[in-house]
Amino acid sequence: MADHVEELIAGTRAGRPRAVARLISLIERAAAEAAADSAASATLRRVMAGLATPGPDGREPYRARVIGLTGAPGVGKSTTTSMLVGELRRRGAKVGVLAVDPSSPFTGGALLGDRVRMQEHATDPGVFIRSMASRGHLGGLAWATPQALRVLDAAGCEVILVETVGVGQAEVDIAGLADTTVVLLAPGMGDGVQAAKAGVMEIGDVFVVNKADREGAQATIRELRGMLALGTAPWRPPIVATVASRGEGAADLLAALDKHHAYLAESGELARRRHARARDEIEQIAVASLRARIVRVHGDRRLDELAGRVLAGETDPYSAAAELVAGL
Amino acid sequence: MADHVEELIAGTRAGRPRAVARLISLIERAAAEAAADSAASATLRRVMAGLATPGPDGREPYRARVIGLTGAPGVGKSTTTSMLVGELRRRGAKVGVLAVDPSSPFTGGALLGDRVRMQEHATDPGVFIRSMASRGHLGGLAWATPQALRVLDAAGCEVILVETVGVGQAEVDIAGLADTTVVLLAPGMGDGVQAAKAGVMEIGDVFVVNKADREGAQATIRELRGMLALGTAPWRPPIVATVASRGEGAADLLAALDKHHAYLAESGELARRRHARARDEIEQIAVASLRARIVRVHGDRRLDELAGRVLAGETDPYSAAAELVAGL
Repeated sequence: MADHVEELIAGTRAGRPRAVARLISLIERAAAEAAADSAASATLRRVMAGLATPGPDGREPYRARVIGLTGAPGVGKSTTTSMLVGELRRRGAKVGVLAVDPSSPFTGGALLGDRVRMQEHATDPGVFIRSMASRGHLGGLAWATPQALRVLDAAGCEVILVETVGVGQAEVDIAGLADTTVVLLAPGMGDGVQAAKAGVMEIGDVFVVNKADREGAQATIRELRGMLALGTAPWRPPIVATVASRGEGAADLLAALDKHHAYLAESGELARRRHARARDEIEQIAVASLRARIVRVHGDRRLDELAGRVLAGETDPYSAAAELVAGL
Repeated sequence: MADHVEELIAGTRAGRPRAVARLISLIERAAAEAAADSAASATLRRVMAGLATPGPDGREPYRARVIGLTGAPGVGKSTTTSMLVGELRRRGAKVGVLAVDPSSPFTGGALLGDRVRMQEHATDPGVFIRSMASRGHLGGLAWATPQALRVLDAAGCEVILVETVGVGQAEVDIAGLADTTVVLLAPGMGDGVQAAKAGVMEIGDVFVVNKADREGAQATIRELRGMLALGTAPWRPPIVATVASRGEGAADLLAALDKHHAYLAESGELARRRHARARDEIEQIAVASLRARIVRVHGDRRLDELAGRVLAGETDPYSAAAELVAGL
């Protein structure tokens, strides 16, 4: 196992797609097992320690630009992501794509249709595409997502696109992971004012109105503009109209992303966001390791017994939790 | 403060709306402060301990039926909830409503329009209505939501309706909190197959196709039926057509909910779900208290310093987290 991990790290550093894919798989498995298995935790630690230092080519870690793309199902996130990959490739940038899937036993594989749209890039050695499950112990995004970003960063990706589905917690999580968050809307999906209700509007650094050739696109843009005019933050999010299925708007979108990146760098906000992200990650890992310790020390039986006592009215959940913590 | 808490608990037990509202507010504030303030934690513990035992009338805790309602923005959740409240009131049941809002500084108050639909019940002493913010440290639903359920339970509510917005983690969370989860769809919103993609289909115990007088309703029902036919679980979720704005389908919906409740009770699933819920709650409180201890022991400066070292490539997030945990 030890040599295996080192080998995968070295392969990742060299930008070999198979090593990148296998290292992310290893992280996913280890993250799922880490709560119950201290060997899995140790493996995760070794991988992260291996990726934290500058690479053999002197490339420092944490240099990749991370761009999150989010929006309701059906707005065209995968198509837009694919369009953006094409545009970045034309510039010669190495690109990583993480598609975060809300997987479930019932709907497993439902997103395969989307991934087909990515296939034009599947054989390009300068593009790493990976999908991950979105259910984790710590919110909408997979526990392993920040760590998968590290792997793609170490593989030399200059830009990483993180695409996620849904309206809700996943958006908030993606904003925590990304330097720039793109919120996608489409006309005629009730996504204008409705999106505002769901609380995703304030996480958008750049807005895309996709399917801009459809009826209602101008109305959606107007509504959005009116809403954004209420904001008071120093960065006023631009609105880009695209027809991603025909590649229209790719250059405009990339220009908007570059402008936001320049703003982040100049204002010091980029450093601030990355610092906050590192803090969150450390804190989450610490909390996860404490949670793992609860499970390891007490086991399932003890938790079951406490749950039974709470349900019987013999104790309350706070006192039960205090018993767990005191026993560590 | 001590007398105050006891007074609010006694008032809640007596079913006094003002005491219920103030106790939930107190829990919300304390939950927000508990990470940094051990007095807030102590208050929460006292409230929960006070509510955990049987009431003066002999009513045992954890007896309320908890019904979650979820679906994309615009499908008519608030209207359906309001219709259900009316139907339950006609039966004489005491009802609690928790509306979980995805609040944010930018969109704060955006749901006020919805709450107007609840106003017909606002003066009914047999109905407790409360909205809560949905952003918490531990996922889509507010940290304090399970505790607010306790308060409504102690106030004598026989049924508690929890309404939440969004497609994503909040749904998964609501399914963890509720005995029965209702997933709402509406025709012409791209919510059929699309909802399946977002992974909410498998959490529905009962499906509602609201706005069933609109074009496309039959197609939505057919599509849903085809999808549910793929399921292999012993409970086959029924589909109820409603026009909530006109009160149509209220009795059918309540009949479907009763049938599911009977199924849960007979199959032993009700006890299993409630046990799992109590376990989750204990574990989350334990983890939250450990997280609070990290903040209290190390303070912000230490976390900032570690984040800086990670960003500089001097350490990795796992080693940084291990330092935090070792210092407890």
